[in-house]
Amino acid sequence: MATKIVVRGACMEAPRGVRGERGASPDSSHAVPDDRRDAPRRLAERRRWNSPVSALARSSSLPSAILIMLLAGMLLTGLVGCGQASRTSQQHQPSQLGQPSQLGQPSQLGQPGQPIAPIVDPLPSWRAGESKQAILEFVARATDEDGPDFVKPEDRIAVFDNDGTLWAEQPVYVQVVFAIDQVRATAAKHPEWRETEPYASILRGGEDVLRSMSGRQLVALATEVFGGMTTEEYRDAVTAWLSTARHPTTGLRYEEMVYQPMLEVLAHLRANGFRTYIVSGGGFEFVRPLAERVYGIPPEQVLGSIASLRLEQRDGVPILVKGTALEFLNDREAKAIAIERMIGRRPVLAFGNSDGDLAMLEWTSAGAGARLGVLIHHTDAIREWSYDRGSAIGTLDVGLDEAVERGWTVVDMARDWAEVYPIPPSTR
Amino acid sequence: MATKIVVRGACMEAPRGVRGERGASPDSSHAVPDDRRDAPRRLAERRRWNSPVSALARSSSLPSAILIMLLAGMLLTGLVGCGQASRTSQQHQPSQLGQPSQLGQPSQLGQPGQPIAPIVDPLPSWRAGESKQAILEFVARATDEDGPDFVKPEDRIAVFDNDGTLWAEQPVYVQVVFAIDQVRATAAKHPEWRETEPYASILRGGEDVLRSMSGRQLVALATEVFGGMTTEEYRDAVTAWLSTARHPTTGLRYEEMVYQPMLEVLAHLRANGFRTYIVSGGGFEFVRPLAERVYGIPPEQVLGSIASLRLEQRDGVPILVKGTALEFLNDREAKAIAIERMIGRRPVLAFGNSDGDLAMLEWTSAGAGARLGVLIHHTDAIREWSYDRGSAIGTLDVGLDEAVERGWTVVDMARDWAEVYPIPPSTR
Repeated sequence: MATKIVVRGACMEAPRGVRGERGASPDSSHAVPDDRRDAPRRLAERRRWNSPVSALARSSSLPSAILIMLLAGMLLTGLVGCGQASRTSQQHQPSQLGQPSQLGQPSQLGQPGQPIAPIVDPLPSWRAGESKQAILEFVARATDEDGPDFVKPEDRIAVFDNDGTLWAEQPVYVQVVFAIDQVRATAAKHPEWRETEPYASILRGGEDVLRSMSGRQLVALATEVFGGMTTEEYRDAVTAWLSTARHPTTGLRYEEMVYQPMLEVLAHLRANGFRTYIVSGGGFEFVRPLAERVYGIPPEQVLGSIASLRLEQRDGVPILVKGTALEFLNDREAKAIAIERMIGRRPVLAFGNSDGDLAMLEWTSAGAGARLGVLIHHTDAIREWSYDRGSAIGTLDVGLDEAVERGWTVVDMARDWAEVYPIPPSTR
Repeated sequence: MATKIVVRGACMEAPRGVRGERGASPDSSHAVPDDRRDAPRRLAERRRWNSPVSALARSSSLPSAILIMLLAGMLLTGLVGCGQASRTSQQHQPSQLGQPSQLGQPSQLGQPGQPIAPIVDPLPSWRAGESKQAILEFVARATDEDGPDFVKPEDRIAVFDNDGTLWAEQPVYVQVVFAIDQVRATAAKHPEWRETEPYASILRGGEDVLRSMSGRQLVALATEVFGGMTTEEYRDAVTAWLSTARHPTTGLRYEEMVYQPMLEVLAHLRANGFRTYIVSGGGFEFVRPLAERVYGIPPEQVLGSIASLRLEQRDGVPILVKGTALEFLNDREAKAIAIERMIGRRPVLAFGNSDGDLAMLEWTSAGAGARLGVLIHHTDAIREWSYDRGSAIGTLDVGLDEAVERGWTVVDMARDWAEVYPIPPSTR
């Protein structure tokens, strides 16, 4: 709960040569198409984060001291490059996470030479290129009252998948890891699990059983094991777990594995009057505590899979108790249906990363007027993971072909993102 | 679509004696506990609106000319009483409907004697009394940053039932009338209806069959007959029907049978930073077109019963097609569940009118801090309808007793409301 996430994107323009990658303005980043080979810290990162997808249960082995040194180095690089101190944002001010300065306007990008007015890049973690340009241009067109693609403020709805789009999803969805920890923690109360799959395998430590399960089965598992909790107990459990649990190979807390470039997109959209919604295949109750604190997205703008729920009276006080049944799996066609039911307006912008997001992108793109569909393509085996057509988690197969037909933007994570995760705090 | 709804509530303070009921400030309305016997127009209203609940299928018989004269008289009375012209609001500016002037503050109410600053009553259609006071005081306390009952802006969630709370529901829910009209209009395509109840009875003109149907059966009927329509076709059909269909006994369009006092409550809450949600037992797709235009409530803030929906591709374009199954009846306990799923915050204020709203009020009231639960009690057989414990539609039985235990405010429509419906336009 005390973690601070450093916010970048507020760097003022500085003379060339002094300016580093972190605080790069768009023109300077043009000159550095792939800077991952240059900096020593990149080598360190590569050594640290070259984690195979198969390392499902491997726990972090790097001593904390080395991690702190690395992080301090990263932070320092950022400060020097930026030419001024980075702003920090308290977690309890979620709307400031990744919030760029309001001084710059997208239309000023790529127009250097204004000697006084600062030029601010709202997407500093995005390298210059087609993807970044597509996002910035869409926002500029949608907010240009005199242009043909103007979108009225009430129609500025942007929808985002969560797993693999806003944060990492490998080697398995974070919510499933939470469920596995719950299975282990409450096994004593469930002797029947010793005889029932997938519980028996999980309790024996054999998590390979997860690989053979469908998305529906995984979400159903993550639903079932929390049946009987009140909604408040579940929310507290999620928050507590997220504050301590660490990814088995990166050693980061899961909240630290949100994508910095996407935090910047969320902030840039909101600064331009968009409402940002999450449309997740995960349970909405799991995503909400994270969404509000880290993404700055309020609970009513989180759509997800729906578990059964019942209202009970305990000592005359009504409480909501989670059931064990998965009532609505928010995946594929269901995402378009959930958008109709819970938002009631067709989005103008949709971000996804898997074939499970195609219906959402199709539904978004089929509306009249300017639309933007974006697929995050996981191409970065060094800093994150590389997977698409053959992956069990986050399969992106049909989407890669359909993107060409429909004119969707495909983000090449390795090429387009200068950073992947927010800089972890130096005080860890 | 061209209808204007006259907005009151912007009257400046005038000398006593000149001031009429319409523009009454709180202190003056104290002196007129029941003014329904006084004005000639009241007699006219009584003659016109003394409609028994049983007149289900009776159609309007009063000539339009008389209606126009009556309405013109009502408007004139309002203008004289107010001492200045009433503002009018275009339908396409829903947020202005019933919007009080921003000049007055609730805390100024009941403090006459300011010779220059105008005192504006945000609830001019409410007579002074406990109900009005409870609403005004709750809003004042919730927005008082220094007080013990301050509610943070993000937590200012107010939920409203629709049928019988925001508009009339007798002799049967408006959505069911819409469905009956659809049954008659499409009977030729459904020869099987001649042999199937309740269709056969409806087609023979025998609408008494509706009286024996449960709320679930009525909503299921209203769902089934629109199966196969796209969501856009359905929305257009609702909008077209609402623009022409008239209530069988009042002769008013249904949109004109929204409650003026409740429009003022919605506007007053929004002016004080509340978000207003509808939590209806009706289908959300039916309520949304009305809600946005008349209540100023956007589609994403309308929760209701949920029909099946499927995504289809037609000529490569995705469309959403309504199914015939009722998947979620948003009544009783389900209202609390829907609030958790779609809002994710516990409301601080809830308005309902029937036992179907009790779980919503209980869930709202059980939260920590200041809460307000309000039940609209239909006590006005002259201007609207009088019904409670024994009514098939809008049964209010347990709620009348529970309100005492839980400290909910029970609005006596005949006593507390100076007006029921907005003044219909003089240009009709």
